[in-house]
Amino acid sequence: MSYRAPVEDMAFALRQLAGIGRLSGDHFEAFDDDLIDPILEEAGKLASDVLAPLNQAGDEQGAQLTGDGVVAPHGFAEAYRQFAEGGWMGLAAPVEWGGQGLPRTLSNAVLEMLHGSNTSFGLCPMLSAGAIEALLAHGGEAEKKKYLPRLISGEWTGTMNLTEPQAGSDVGALKTKAVPQDDGSYQISGQKIYITWGDHDMTDNIIHLVLARLPDAPEGSRGISLFVVPKVLVNEDGSLGARNGVECIGLEKKIGIHASPTCVMEYDGATGWLVGEENKGLACMFTMMNAARLNVGLEGVGVSEAAYQTAYAYANERKQGRAEGVDGPAPILHHADIRRTLTTMRAHTMAARAICYACGVAADLSDAAEDEAAREAARLREELLTPIAKAWSTDTGVEMASLGVQIHGGMGFMNETLAAQLYRDARIAPIYEGTNGIQAIDLVGRKLSMAGGRAMDEMIDEVRETARAARETNDPQLGQIADRLVASADALREATDWMKAAMKDEREKGLSGATAYLELAGDVIGGHFLTKGALSARADNSSLRGRMTALAGFFAETSLAEAPGRVSGITRGGDSFLAESEALFGLS
Amino acid sequence: MSYRAPVEDMAFALRQLAGIGRLSGDHFEAFDDDLIDPILEEAGKLASDVLAPLNQAGDEQGAQLTGDGVVAPHGFAEAYRQFAEGGWMGLAAPVEWGGQGLPRTLSNAVLEMLHGSNTSFGLCPMLSAGAIEALLAHGGEAEKKKYLPRLISGEWTGTMNLTEPQAGSDVGALKTKAVPQDDGSYQISGQKIYITWGDHDMTDNIIHLVLARLPDAPEGSRGISLFVVPKVLVNEDGSLGARNGVECIGLEKKIGIHASPTCVMEYDGATGWLVGEENKGLACMFTMMNAARLNVGLEGVGVSEAAYQTAYAYANERKQGRAEGVDGPAPILHHADIRRTLTTMRAHTMAARAICYACGVAADLSDAAEDEAAREAARLREELLTPIAKAWSTDTGVEMASLGVQIHGGMGFMNETLAAQLYRDARIAPIYEGTNGIQAIDLVGRKLSMAGGRAMDEMIDEVRETARAARETNDPQLGQIADRLVASADALREATDWMKAAMKDEREKGLSGATAYLELAGDVIGGHFLTKGALSARADNSSLRGRMTALAGFFAETSLAEAPGRVSGITRGGDSFLAESEALFGLS
Repeated sequence: MSYRAPVEDMAFALRQLAGIGRLSGDHFEAFDDDLIDPILEEAGKLASDVLAPLNQAGDEQGAQLTGDGVVAPHGFAEAYRQFAEGGWMGLAAPVEWGGQGLPRTLSNAVLEMLHGSNTSFGLCPMLSAGAIEALLAHGGEAEKKKYLPRLISGEWTGTMNLTEPQAGSDVGALKTKAVPQDDGSYQISGQKIYITWGDHDMTDNIIHLVLARLPDAPEGSRGISLFVVPKVLVNEDGSLGARNGVECIGLEKKIGIHASPTCVMEYDGATGWLVGEENKGLACMFTMMNAARLNVGLEGVGVSEAAYQTAYAYANERKQGRAEGVDGPAPILHHADIRRTLTTMRAHTMAARAICYACGVAADLSDAAEDEAAREAARLREELLTPIAKAWSTDTGVEMASLGVQIHGGMGFMNETLAAQLYRDARIAPIYEGTNGIQAIDLVGRKLSMAGGRAMDEMIDEVRETARAARETNDPQLGQIADRLVASADALREATDWMKAAMKDEREKGLSGATAYLELAGDVIGGHFLTKGALSARADNSSLRGRMTALAGFFAETSLAEAPGRVSGITRGGDSFLAESEALFGLS
Repeated sequence: MSYRAPVEDMAFALRQLAGIGRLSGDHFEAFDDDLIDPILEEAGKLASDVLAPLNQAGDEQGAQLTGDGVVAPHGFAEAYRQFAEGGWMGLAAPVEWGGQGLPRTLSNAVLEMLHGSNTSFGLCPMLSAGAIEALLAHGGEAEKKKYLPRLISGEWTGTMNLTEPQAGSDVGALKTKAVPQDDGSYQISGQKIYITWGDHDMTDNIIHLVLARLPDAPEGSRGISLFVVPKVLVNEDGSLGARNGVECIGLEKKIGIHASPTCVMEYDGATGWLVGEENKGLACMFTMMNAARLNVGLEGVGVSEAAYQTAYAYANERKQGRAEGVDGPAPILHHADIRRTLTTMRAHTMAARAICYACGVAADLSDAAEDEAAREAARLREELLTPIAKAWSTDTGVEMASLGVQIHGGMGFMNETLAAQLYRDARIAPIYEGTNGIQAIDLVGRKLSMAGGRAMDEMIDEVRETARAARETNDPQLGQIADRLVASADALREATDWMKAAMKDEREKGLSGATAYLELAGDVIGGHFLTKGALSARADNSSLRGRMTALAGFFAETSLAEAPGRVSGITRGGDSFLAESEALFGLS
């Protein structure tokens, strides 16, 4: 069994659920609906034929630290070359720097495939994308010219260097130093940890984006600056010069993503150049954060899809027990309990995909929509959906990977099984790029209060509109789904009003319900998209109609039906442990 | 950080939640309430001081297959010697065979500690217990004399050999052959897989219990017989004779429990002796199954507890961000979202523990209660709780281990962290000893219909009584918990009635809701025990009162509050995918 890009589901989600059509025409000159299928199919071939076959071997071999730096697993360098030559790195990059100027939403879909076929591999371009975005938004002209074309072509890769042992979620606590030099450059010294693809042998150069502190910088997050630090210095004529003072001095041993080197990076007087203004490094990072978080959300979607596919293939093949209408042992797919699990996986994967793609469309529109009001509305939607896309999708990734193991029975616990690898690989995504707890705090602490709460208000209104449209079909199945959707929208409304008040008046109490609130929001918005899917697919004559109706119906009777009962977990769940923190945890 | 046996919580669960007091006096001569604390404390020392320190090193080294068979990780043999010398293997075994004749519930509590401190180690005595039980219930006098004393003393260990590649959940499909010999023995030939501790160097002998098929046996599960096959043949005088024709020919590479060898066993004309009657092997296995399933449930409890402890220790130590009343960076325990996660872990662990211990008390009473009516009532309770104890507790183990990783942030993904190991170790328990899907089918297919449904009726009545008692305290906190408990009991009642009807009239539909039904039942029964805990702890002046009130209150506002909304997932969740199995899965 090997991952196949689910092109039909992805195209449906892009068009019917996320509404990528809104990006056509004036917004993105280069984009047209006709491009969607060929792009998904070509990227799908790369994912299915090149990356997926390397996934398990890469996990077993792992990235290795040698005397010459980090060596990627066999076949990764060649696969990366094909990725770069296909122009995939520059899909959504500006034309003036060598990109194709297409919507980011399309590159999101491609990224989902990279992650689904080979998460370890997918992380390398994902980090490059962050470096490209940082330089595009904040780099000086000289740095842009030097690095952007070769990052966008994929000739070089990029990394993000934030974390230090004492500075994780609280990045303001970092200590790496940057000392200004007479020539305008800076000498960077310090240690960074958890640097994904911080070193490797797939390209000639690696461009590190590094957060560091100037000698006289204010304490905390207001004293952090951003620097670009190439692994190999680049001469004025573009040729490669001397090796810079940065190296990988250790690789972490991890639960999963073994083929992706997670590096301890030592900066020892490395030469770097300021990106953006002094002491504004954190603000620079913030402008990239939404994209990075959405990209991690897509990692969750990719892993979920892969977990579904391998579980389905196994269930279709593994014979055990009897079933009506089957002679001899029947494939376990015939057992209703197995089909329930597979339906759960498929529905949640599709819901997470829709949330992520919709977040991508909002991000594209917030950049490119014609009038300012539309850009602002899109920006609010992007801001609202980003923490949900990140957290809900990556929790989904972990849960679906676990269900995938379960369907495999004993085989699922064996390392030789892809399901086992996915269970291990999936676990990182809820942690990095802001833990899911941080996402929940971002959602209730910042996103609900933006523009007087407009973002969630508009989202809930849209959920209600979808329910109304479902009801107006007079189709009893859709009517039942609509009832669940309305009740869950009411629940989200109630929880939202409570949360906004709590974050003003009883912040600790609000925070105590943040994670549960995000989960509820993800369920309701996910259910909204699945309902849209069932509505759109009514006109379809293929199996898509039955599939989308079933996924929406199942999700409505499970996750949406549970939504009203989950409000009290948000509004009252914290009472108990906040009041008894001494008895529970020795906290006075 | 290292596991400490949670003696106070365990003693509370044994006494106040599971009602171990009912086993005193006539039922178990050797048992008295005064024994509980010393036994828990002594076993706790073994777990905390001997087994826990070997847990991570054992994971890293793993069991190894050498030319001389399987070698356990460093220190395991010595730890096993201490375990055996402490008499722990025979705690609940009959006095006539060298045991201590104490209730099995007590050995359950000890097993929880073994699993919590070192799951890989704990599996070895867990499998021995199965072999002991098989021989006690079905072995001939000669086999009992030969093997039981040395299994019960821990001098030898035991294994269970059921699974073959084509015969997993459907054990009736097995092919291993047993050919009768003139001397009354049998020659056993075939391959068995997934044999836990199938070989090792910790003891001189290993006693395998093996399912095989006689030459003229009927097909399927009615043609299976049980045999005892020692690794080393035992002479009439008890001395060890020749090596038998059985060996481990391979070890599985697994996600976790690396220190526990999972063996491929080759039986090549090995000499064995029949246990029980010919072709009644599956029936013999069934008599052991309840105990084995409960034991795996305790594995889930142990892992959950360990995950909680290590997460709490990390949260108390790791400083990141600011908190009110703390100078400088605050331990992340101060963040409400972290405390919520820890409370979730603690509440679910306690609920799972109570379900398992209550199942153990029922098992003990079903053996030992004076009058037949009491034994029958206890047997029904044991039968009902067994699949819930197994499935709900092991799902809890996986979920809590995952939350434990999350609390650790990036560190949680690193193999050096105990949390990472627990995430990997936990994943097997929902799979073996009957997958959790099989447990759910057992619950709805057999347990709900026993004695006209009496088992669940009595359970629900008891839940209502607990709610009534909580309400009668006139304590508003307990009153609120009682309201949630009553509503969730109503939900379980409704789901139960539907399920019983469905399993008669629309079996496929019933089965489609089986897993969701088991989850609901576990939540409601778990909430019932936590409420009992809050009630009992009212009289307590220590921190126990606040802790138990908080755990019950939290569980009531989360899991119990969600219960009513989960009925439709049981009764209607299957409609969608049963109707659209062709569109979803290509099943006609």
